[in-house]
Amino acid sequence: MNYAKISAEKHLQYQGKWEIASKFPLENTDDLSIAYSPGVAEPCKIIAEDKEKSFSYTCRGNTVAVVTDGTAVLGLGDIGPEAAMPVMEGKCLLFKHFGGVDAIPLCLDTTDVDEIVETVVRLAPSFGGINLEDIAAPRCFEIEKKLKERLHIPIFHDDQHGTAIVVLAALKNALKVVNKKIEEVKIVMSGAGAAGIAIAKLIMKAGGKNIILCDSKGVIGSYRLDINDAKKEIVKNSSADEKGSLKDVLHNADVFLGVSKGDLLVSSDIETMNDDAIVFAMANPTPEIFPADAKKGGAKIVATGRSDFPNQVNNVVAFPGLFKGLFAMRAKEITPEIYMAVANALAESIENPDIENILPNVFDEGVADRVAEAVINCC
Amino acid sequence: MNYAKISAEKHLQYQGKWEIASKFPLENTDDLSIAYSPGVAEPCKIIAEDKEKSFSYTCRGNTVAVVTDGTAVLGLGDIGPEAAMPVMEGKCLLFKHFGGVDAIPLCLDTTDVDEIVETVVRLAPSFGGINLEDIAAPRCFEIEKKLKERLHIPIFHDDQHGTAIVVLAALKNALKVVNKKIEEVKIVMSGAGAAGIAIAKLIMKAGGKNIILCDSKGVIGSYRLDINDAKKEIVKNSSADEKGSLKDVLHNADVFLGVSKGDLLVSSDIETMNDDAIVFAMANPTPEIFPADAKKGGAKIVATGRSDFPNQVNNVVAFPGLFKGLFAMRAKEITPEIYMAVANALAESIENPDIENILPNVFDEGVADRVAEAVINCC
Repeated sequence: MNYAKISAEKHLQYQGKWEIASKFPLENTDDLSIAYSPGVAEPCKIIAEDKEKSFSYTCRGNTVAVVTDGTAVLGLGDIGPEAAMPVMEGKCLLFKHFGGVDAIPLCLDTTDVDEIVETVVRLAPSFGGINLEDIAAPRCFEIEKKLKERLHIPIFHDDQHGTAIVVLAALKNALKVVNKKIEEVKIVMSGAGAAGIAIAKLIMKAGGKNIILCDSKGVIGSYRLDINDAKKEIVKNSSADEKGSLKDVLHNADVFLGVSKGDLLVSSDIETMNDDAIVFAMANPTPEIFPADAKKGGAKIVATGRSDFPNQVNNVVAFPGLFKGLFAMRAKEITPEIYMAVANALAESIENPDIENILPNVFDEGVADRVAEAVINCC
Repeated sequence: MNYAKISAEKHLQYQGKWEIASKFPLENTDDLSIAYSPGVAEPCKIIAEDKEKSFSYTCRGNTVAVVTDGTAVLGLGDIGPEAAMPVMEGKCLLFKHFGGVDAIPLCLDTTDVDEIVETVVRLAPSFGGINLEDIAAPRCFEIEKKLKERLHIPIFHDDQHGTAIVVLAALKNALKVVNKKIEEVKIVMSGAGAAGIAIAKLIMKAGGKNIILCDSKGVIGSYRLDINDAKKEIVKNSSADEKGSLKDVLHNADVFLGVSKGDLLVSSDIETMNDDAIVFAMANPTPEIFPADAKKGGAKIVATGRSDFPNQVNNVVAFPGLFKGLFAMRAKEITPEIYMAVANALAESIENPDIENILPNVFDEGVADRVAEAVINCC
């Protein structure tokens, strides 16, 4: 199926993907007097007395803003806020369809950290949570940090933490299949952007000790002068003294995690890894190495970001249920403990993981509810 | 019916009034690949090449932001952004139900003119138009002016221009019934806030020459030192030398327009007006004078803001169709000519106006379409 062509045609035909629907009837004057003036003054007064009630008397408590500046959209990069909208609209549909969460796409005409932060802070009374999306690193880290300091609603950068959650869940099940321990494996990561850093952090929180970060220049050791604070934090705890290229450090690795770019590795690279190698080649749409080539090189378990191969690493299994749970608890923040709980819930939702079945599919019954339950039990 | 009680209960029961609905199916992997990755990259690329296409390939072209700072909500005043939300949600439902326009409520946590302007400018890539709502005067004038200068999408302050449009339509038909000319009548206006100023301006544009503005301190003459620029502009063209109280200037007036506060006038005040007096007592929920009392004082035609009396002056007959038309034409701004065209369309939609029938009802078939058509013919 030519998804690109069909997608463009349908976007134009329907003028985008979402619309507003009413939960109240509006068929006569009485309906109007309840939904609008004069009746509406009553919920206004109730909230004016106690702002917390805005979460229960308005849509706020079930609504997340999907906020982007359009600087890191899909594999397309910095295409600007207008062009980012189809992705944000899609995200909003997924929130609603899988989690019952209402989501509003907001594409901002600024790439300045403080301007983005100020804008979101001013918008906060309308929203129960903020989902940052497709904002380039390292600005995304700063924006997330500042918003967490200023607001008392959950702030979530899906490209970082959604990805990290799902990768950790997949890694847990993959290690179970090959009977290795997260504390003992050597993990090589290609890509040290928003996703890479967050994945490394969460794996370390889950017990991982030996994670070697690589970017386009090779291994990131503490001797590198060109690395930002986020990278430094990982490096000092892990690959401080490692040197060489990605291919160099892949020798004797147990796990390869790719969130970088397509066609980076060949079968012979995988051959240098330890037995029962785990290869998550998650670059989109072209993986770092295609599953057949990775298998040919000896990989036992292969995952990609694509829906047309087994083991799709797909954030959609995480974020709708995550916000469903956060909203159910009226959570004021998201903690790393919540990420861990969601990763565990996703991993455990596969009763008997095997080499082609380490993650739930987004269409599996009850995935979002299981995630939401894990969040609720953690809050 | 106890609208207040029912409204509060229903808002709590449904957690607000609107939700997101999808225009795309999302039932299987193919659906996801069209609505989201990888297919969605195609409309993104198309828009990246030509930003104008964001109006046709995304919801932008049919979506208006309903923006408030919560400072002038209903008769409740400055209740803050959280408490303003039930009204904004209601507004959004009306946009959709009557005009097919999608609207998003955004309640801002700032009352600073420049901060509001900056915030809306940054949000603009997501919206086809901006509806300012319940922002106190005189800040609302400045905000509207600055946004019109900075953005190339329609900016509309409904409290000003929506009200002005509907009042002018009602006045045209009322004058027709009593056989008087807008150029010749003496009009006394009580209330010189956002609505009052806009009504006066639009009536002057429609030919009105003798409009006397009053506020809580009495007549606003050019000698008054406490009046803002917006008021000065009206006054210098009309009531420059008038003096006294509202009741003083009501003598020999043909038209009373009230957008001030309840229980301001009694029957004997109306008795001092000319024969066939027209009284629009539009304060909500309590009018400046109730219809029965106005009639007792000799008023021929009485209108209020309420749905439980004849001749309700209700902005809902204007704004949904207005934006429907603007969006159909992808208009870049709203001009006073458009306000006039809409007022004329509304007036002319009543074939034979009489004393209890000077305006269409919002539930009348085709009102929004007639308004949209007038806008389309004017763009």
